[in-house]
Amino acid sequence: MDRAIDFYFDFTSPYSYLASTQIEDIAARHGRTVRWHPVLLAGLTEATGVKLTPFVPIKFAYALKDLARGARLRGVPFAMPQDFPKLWLNPPRAFLWVHAAYGEDKARAFAQRVFAKAFGEGVGVNDVEVLAEVAARLDIDPDALRAGVHDDEVKAALKFRIETALANGVFGVPFMVADGEAWWGADRVRELDEYLAGQPA
Amino acid sequence: MDRAIDFYFDFTSPYSYLASTQIEDIAARHGRTVRWHPVLLAGLTEATGVKLTPFVPIKFAYALKDLARGARLRGVPFAMPQDFPKLWLNPPRAFLWVHAAYGEDKARAFAQRVFAKAFGEGVGVNDVEVLAEVAARLDIDPDALRAGVHDDEVKAALKFRIETALANGVFGVPFMVADGEAWWGADRVRELDEYLAGQPA
Repeated sequence: MDRAIDFYFDFTSPYSYLASTQIEDIAARHGRTVRWHPVLLAGLTEATGVKLTPFVPIKFAYALKDLARGARLRGVPFAMPQDFPKLWLNPPRAFLWVHAAYGEDKARAFAQRVFAKAFGEGVGVNDVEVLAEVAARLDIDPDALRAGVHDDEVKAALKFRIETALANGVFGVPFMVADGEAWWGADRVRELDEYLAGQPA
Repeated sequence: MDRAIDFYFDFTSPYSYLASTQIEDIAARHGRTVRWHPVLLAGLTEATGVKLTPFVPIKFAYALKDLARGARLRGVPFAMPQDFPKLWLNPPRAFLWVHAAYGEDKARAFAQRVFAKAFGEGVGVNDVEVLAEVAARLDIDPDALRAGVHDDEVKAALKFRIETALANGVFGVPFMVADGEAWWGADRVRELDEYLAGQPA
């Protein structure tokens, strides 16, 4: 059986950030690995007709407080990027390029650092120079990454990920799938953890 | 300080049902009481422009599995009423009438029994005869209740509850407020529990 956990996320999603700070530790504790799948939440909601939270003022007001509390409870830093909410196309494209050029482990490390920059420090990570800087610290060629985000194959790969996500029942982020069971939302990472604890290691 | 927990719910909401099976025990464990506030989720989402889950097929497919799992994890029965989703106006009106005529404790017991009928047994509880039967078992005058659901003051009271909920930042259900802190979603009842555990008794 496939024991990997599928982790669908969007770099623009602060709740994805919260989940991203926990998912690897939880998987490792239960002898599992994580497959990271970048998507665009805007692409999912366009397909479903669901309104994005930042555009529902009463819901967004709650989310801002809830996110700060969620970060506090998880013991991780939290800051909203000044340009939020904005469609960030470069981070998922950069991730997919790193994934193709350097493999899964490097891409995962890259994703974690980009999330930490975006929602740990509040930096707008759609800026290719910010992404190149993160890349360089991970011994990823920054010039190649600068070119990579404009690669047509990379752009097509992101579209394909979004279509695949929808085909797999993913309508929001973060979204986790393990053993065919699905959990939606940063607040469900804990339930996933408990589920995994109940499965044979 | 006001130590009561405000619990906003909709009788048509299966996630409200899940939360309704836990909220009183949790409150009691921490020396708190619960104020039950019926609202119409459709009224809230009309104001916010948010699409109701049953009308987003990909999301509803997830919710049905998630609800069954949530009931299993909580050890409570679960069945979707055959007429779901339907606008149920009579249960919240009946609740408000019971509240006015018999007080808070009776209204709470009534709400719990109506929820158990709806999502524990899968019965369409908009039927006034079903509500009258539940009422009778709680020594509530069923004939007075039959008349009560059509009372103009009761109808106005429900509208007022929805407006008040929105004014208090409530955009979905179940929604819990304690000490000015808010939690949205059945999956947050546990966080509320943990919060209360950390407060002076």
